[in-house]
Amino acid sequence: MEITYFNGKFIPKEEVKINPDDRGFLFADGIYEVVRWYEGFFYDMNSHVTRLKRSLRELRINWDATDKFPSIANELIKLNKLENQPAMLYLQVTRGAARRSHSFPSPEVTPTAYAFAWGFVPDTSAKESGIKVMMKEDIRWSRCDIKSVALLANTISFQEAQENGLKECIFVRNGLITEGSHSNIFFIIEGTLFTHPESNNILSGVTRKNILRIAQDSGIKIREEAVQENRIRFIQEAFITNTSLEISPVVELGGNTLGDGLPGPVTRLIREKFDSEIITLKG
Amino acid sequence: MEITYFNGKFIPKEEVKINPDDRGFLFADGIYEVVRWYEGFFYDMNSHVTRLKRSLRELRINWDATDKFPSIANELIKLNKLENQPAMLYLQVTRGAARRSHSFPSPEVTPTAYAFAWGFVPDTSAKESGIKVMMKEDIRWSRCDIKSVALLANTISFQEAQENGLKECIFVRNGLITEGSHSNIFFIIEGTLFTHPESNNILSGVTRKNILRIAQDSGIKIREEAVQENRIRFIQEAFITNTSLEISPVVELGGNTLGDGLPGPVTRLIREKFDSEIITLKG
Repeated sequence: MEITYFNGKFIPKEEVKINPDDRGFLFADGIYEVVRWYEGFFYDMNSHVTRLKRSLRELRINWDATDKFPSIANELIKLNKLENQPAMLYLQVTRGAARRSHSFPSPEVTPTAYAFAWGFVPDTSAKESGIKVMMKEDIRWSRCDIKSVALLANTISFQEAQENGLKECIFVRNGLITEGSHSNIFFIIEGTLFTHPESNNILSGVTRKNILRIAQDSGIKIREEAVQENRIRFIQEAFITNTSLEISPVVELGGNTLGDGLPGPVTRLIREKFDSEIITLKG
Repeated sequence: MEITYFNGKFIPKEEVKINPDDRGFLFADGIYEVVRWYEGFFYDMNSHVTRLKRSLRELRINWDATDKFPSIANELIKLNKLENQPAMLYLQVTRGAARRSHSFPSPEVTPTAYAFAWGFVPDTSAKESGIKVMMKEDIRWSRCDIKSVALLANTISFQEAQENGLKECIFVRNGLITEGSHSNIFFIIEGTLFTHPESNNILSGVTRKNILRIAQDSGIKIREEAVQENRIRFIQEAFITNTSLEISPVVELGGNTLGDGLPGPVTRLIREKFDSEIITLKG
């Protein structure tokens, strides 16, 4: 039986009842986090907690259990017997349930918190052979820095990619490549690692941040600077990052083959460093 | 007891249980409609059904009860004994519940449909004295033509207006005034009625459409053309429209007093025509 966390209790998923007045359901008025469990530990939980707090603060949702998130996450892994396998943890916090009105409930209502965990078998094929991704105009709102559940633009864009046999949709805003529908993107141009700087147009990914640290430590030159869409022909390598897929080499971008169409040496180096960090952390 | 509609059944609100896997809750992957009930009839239900169908089509949600919406709506009015008072009807349809994944569930799942009705006492004070509204950069996505529940940008913008003692937040995109957080906006400049044309940057409001028809029939010159933010000083009158508030004169826009700070003659004329249509429809 799947055990989930719901408003302070650990209960079977079947017993979770989202109120139809929940502002998460009516207005997408909520935020989320996804954390990766590696047989024994959550990857960079501190950064997830920091980002969770920032998202809540930006939307002025006062969830009183924020600091308990790591222990809630651990408990879900234990209750669902996922300790010894790769797993993911999802947490969503909304502003709570109240009579429908665009303005925030006054007085405040108790936020709704829901979390669940699931085991999975990592798909390593994409990491080996690389993936093809599409590009399109960024149709999302201008606060992509908030990890909100207002994800409709992301879902329809990812769906479009999938229906075209592609593994991700990469967005372009004002001629600049921003990020993917659920990933950050990096480019290697003349040996330098490029990625969009932190701004309201991208999500500050936890894996993104760690990749930048790893690249720095490896002596790779870094420029947190957006790459123009019309400079694709200068890109030798690219990869996307996110919590569940870690690092996926991109071998085709918007119909353009990158380099020789295989994961490149800089991408491989970064991935090896990332993998060996995980092995070290596993102890 | 409040009776709601939920997936084909009319049940007490307390019994409605939204699945935490519902894509409306996880991804804002759904659409909605709000229809006004005037003691005896729904206002322009046909246009709401047409827009409902369009929203569902744009998101490729296949809800098999779309044509039953008018009868569902009528039934909710009857079951909640709202026949003889002003009331509102809300319908939300989401893609349904499925294991969380950005891509659409495959195979398709049954959409979730939820509707409820509530009575209210119209506030006529705003109509008499006019309202003050704020303006800010449009932070929403670029498919505002879809009446989706991804409303986070709208709620935080409206909240900002309210905290500043203002009644609506009007958006500006690329220097052009688009619409409000939950209303369309009209301007009168030198006797001509201006409003943003239908596009992906505004919602095609049902009241908006009817106001254009009424203005046309009244011999008012119409230009469906966006007004530039930097031309506010040329505006003599403005008003916002939506299903619940109908027509609200705007007397202050982004700190600028319009005309003499009172509802103007063209606004009053249009409102009188609108009101008299309602009286005729009441029969």
